[in-house]
Amino acid sequence: MAVELLKVDYRTALSSKPNISTSSNIYMTGDGHLFCENLCVKEIQYELAMKTDYASPFYLYSRAQIVDNVQQYKRSLEKNDVPHLLGYTVSANYNLEILRILQKLGCSAVVASINEIKIAMMAGFNPNMMVYNGNGKQLNELEFAVKCGVMINVDSLFDLEHIRKVCRMLHKKANVLMRLHPEIDSDSSQDITETKFGLHHKEFDKALQIVKEEDLVDLIGLHCHLETTLDDVQLFKESLDTMLFWVDKVREMGFDIRYLNMGEGIGLNYKRHIPQSDEILPETKDFISSIAEGIKSKNICLILEPGISIVGNTGILVTKVVGVKTNENKNFIVIDGSMAEVIRPSLYGAYHHIQLIEPTMVGYINQGSHSPNGSARLQTIGQWSWSKALLWWSLILSAEDYYMPYPHEGCGLAIRDVGAYCGSMSSNYSLRQRPAEVLVEGSRWRIIRHAEVFDDIVKPFIGLPSLGVYKDYIDTTEVHLGTLHPWLTWMH
Amino acid sequence: MAVELLKVDYRTALSSKPNISTSSNIYMTGDGHLFCENLCVKEIQYELAMKTDYASPFYLYSRAQIVDNVQQYKRSLEKNDVPHLLGYTVSANYNLEILRILQKLGCSAVVASINEIKIAMMAGFNPNMMVYNGNGKQLNELEFAVKCGVMINVDSLFDLEHIRKVCRMLHKKANVLMRLHPEIDSDSSQDITETKFGLHHKEFDKALQIVKEEDLVDLIGLHCHLETTLDDVQLFKESLDTMLFWVDKVREMGFDIRYLNMGEGIGLNYKRHIPQSDEILPETKDFISSIAEGIKSKNICLILEPGISIVGNTGILVTKVVGVKTNENKNFIVIDGSMAEVIRPSLYGAYHHIQLIEPTMVGYINQGSHSPNGSARLQTIGQWSWSKALLWWSLILSAEDYYMPYPHEGCGLAIRDVGAYCGSMSSNYSLRQRPAEVLVEGSRWRIIRHAEVFDDIVKPFIGLPSLGVYKDYIDTTEVHLGTLHPWLTWMH
Repeated sequence: MAVELLKVDYRTALSSKPNISTSSNIYMTGDGHLFCENLCVKEIQYELAMKTDYASPFYLYSRAQIVDNVQQYKRSLEKNDVPHLLGYTVSANYNLEILRILQKLGCSAVVASINEIKIAMMAGFNPNMMVYNGNGKQLNELEFAVKCGVMINVDSLFDLEHIRKVCRMLHKKANVLMRLHPEIDSDSSQDITETKFGLHHKEFDKALQIVKEEDLVDLIGLHCHLETTLDDVQLFKESLDTMLFWVDKVREMGFDIRYLNMGEGIGLNYKRHIPQSDEILPETKDFISSIAEGIKSKNICLILEPGISIVGNTGILVTKVVGVKTNENKNFIVIDGSMAEVIRPSLYGAYHHIQLIEPTMVGYINQGSHSPNGSARLQTIGQWSWSKALLWWSLILSAEDYYMPYPHEGCGLAIRDVGAYCGSMSSNYSLRQRPAEVLVEGSRWRIIRHAEVFDDIVKPFIGLPSLGVYKDYIDTTEVHLGTLHPWLTWMH
Repeated sequence: MAVELLKVDYRTALSSKPNISTSSNIYMTGDGHLFCENLCVKEIQYELAMKTDYASPFYLYSRAQIVDNVQQYKRSLEKNDVPHLLGYTVSANYNLEILRILQKLGCSAVVASINEIKIAMMAGFNPNMMVYNGNGKQLNELEFAVKCGVMINVDSLFDLEHIRKVCRMLHKKANVLMRLHPEIDSDSSQDITETKFGLHHKEFDKALQIVKEEDLVDLIGLHCHLETTLDDVQLFKESLDTMLFWVDKVREMGFDIRYLNMGEGIGLNYKRHIPQSDEILPETKDFISSIAEGIKSKNICLILEPGISIVGNTGILVTKVVGVKTNENKNFIVIDGSMAEVIRPSLYGAYHHIQLIEPTMVGYINQGSHSPNGSARLQTIGQWSWSKALLWWSLILSAEDYYMPYPHEGCGLAIRDVGAYCGSMSSNYSLRQRPAEVLVEGSRWRIIRHAEVFDDIVKPFIGLPSLGVYKDYIDTTEVHLGTLHPWLTWMH
């Protein structure tokens, strides 16, 4: 997996001018403290550690940023008078409080499993406005979806057959959309021979035929998905034009097409924190205005399925520096975060910016020499420590390619933009406990997900015949838990 | 991530002769049923489904295979009269029952976190014989390790400083090994400039100096690790020679070096199921006999840290086929397993063999045409479905590059060799429940890890102020759980 290396001078970034757009709710102050809304992240880190045993790392979210992101969509859609369902993709982040916020903001939910339907309902989303995606929906999942009246995206002929089967069994109608294979959308830049999603030409014709003869399945919409977040307004527009052509065609066949699902939302510029980065993404409003007329001309409701653009930039992983080491060629900042919490760099080479959340106490390093006016060279966090067969638990930042102040032990370090596909993909690898999640609302913060404890990890083994043996064993040893509070150990 | 494609004719594989070494405890019978020891996997799948609500997919392990793997090491080590600690790497698979088996077989444990120490102790491992690895050990973890008398592998100067700090605080001695940077081991084929592990030359000298003056830290061994599983006997031998040179040198300085930790064990040939594969790995006994004399000449105890070679080939993920789809170019077998359960192909392009566990009811396909004498072309499971920014929940096998019988819906499909770094890295992505684990012992099977339930997923949100709201919401809806048993829905 290639890791992109970028030359960044963090000394510039840490100068008096904030290095990220002032519109962000997570920002660096002139004196080198990272803030989330009105709160200093370091203070939250300290307070959380005082409150709980397992306090580092943790995910931290900005409520204001979530609101801003939704408003960007909503404002553009409303300004252009586009009928819409803004369907938040639950897989991106399933935190119940975050779902609740999004529901209150008027989003609908896009789900990919029976459990996502359930959690979205717990958060108050109306199941009738949910869209259920996936190639491998199972019969019991479809049964639940049909019962709840969830809209179902048909992905294949067998998927359609399963939906029919369930509808007949329940004597209940299902509203479906059909997902078209990108080949049908001829403007797609995808290598379509690899694409596993959607109905191919012949299948689509056949599917239409089947639905026409099936009373219990109502085709109410079409779906396309470019299989990537959007970063090209023109491509999006062309894709829409193709889909509108199909809307006409399918309507001519007598179907009452009311929804057009254009898939994933706008991408997130993960490199925007880098002053020298020339990566520019179009804004939400550019996308919306490019398609507004087309949508309105067909009197159809637009569905979007954003995930990353709704929550990606709302969260950071707050970690602590365990130490700095060198191999004479590179410096490595070892932190208490790992790929168990942020797997995106390892999984698909994603870039996540890192920042110290507080002024360093040590000064600067330059490749291992502790010169106060020097600089450290630090590699992107894509450089997780690993070998071919074995992943180690600690994230190691290789200090070769970035300039960065030399962090003291215990110094806070933030991994930016972890709001999407980080917490939701976290694991217990190396028996790490999955961290707490914290929400900042203006000048207050609160826990919105409890950190796991060791007992949670052992729970799946409870009740097994021989667990008693183990319990006895550990009870009779003279070993007890460490008495040092994890945080206090860093106070010198 | 490149996915290696191999041409395999499964029709050969399904002929009367088993396609894998007869010594394996998981094997295909002549009539096309996959067996684990004395039991038919399909029957276990059926029985498990009768017992539990969430029964597919599940991990299935062979106890006999675990025993065989350990015996291979033990026999070679004992035959060559090599003093040894066979340190099983807990990160590979932390199932408590599996740990218990390994402990009874005389393994010691290699751990990478405080929780791994705890679970290994629960399984009965003696902490004094454990080795604690990692770049980012935290003070509270070190405290626990020192209290328990775990041997600690020093990875860096700051790591050593932390150990000293903890020892002084506890007034207790620690036994440490020092991990050398591969540069010191000059025969390594690694790109050492990227390596984050171990002490570099100058650091090593300094570390020795520090330990010499520190009463509470006893240096009892050296450690090297090639950062890969072993597949080259000669390299291993050369690496040993270098380490023995260092053992002499460090002993001359007055240290009582009793252990030499040679790191990871032997690799696993994941492609051995493929009749045409020419990939051959040396056997355990070749490695052991290549170094036996060297070890014995120094009167030192060898430590090995195998993970994959102990548990890798002991487990399979048993899934069910949801359906087969085509994009006219490829056929895709959609199963109910996903990368949430087996992330290795996505994470580092690992090969995992797949097999139907039962004779297909449909016949063969050839690229979508249902010809009974045709064949399907099926791609490796590295082809998880995904897009640049978004991973979908279902594993999709693209039927282009492998010949395979056309599976009927509900047909069992096994992903081989998932015993290591699969269950231990599993996640709840797309809110999937982590599956049950089942152990086969001769003609019996039993559950050794309970499948998660939806409540487990929601648990971290319990106690949060507004959960009541959600609970009320879902309680007042008229939606209840699906009544269809997930298994029965496949019975036509």
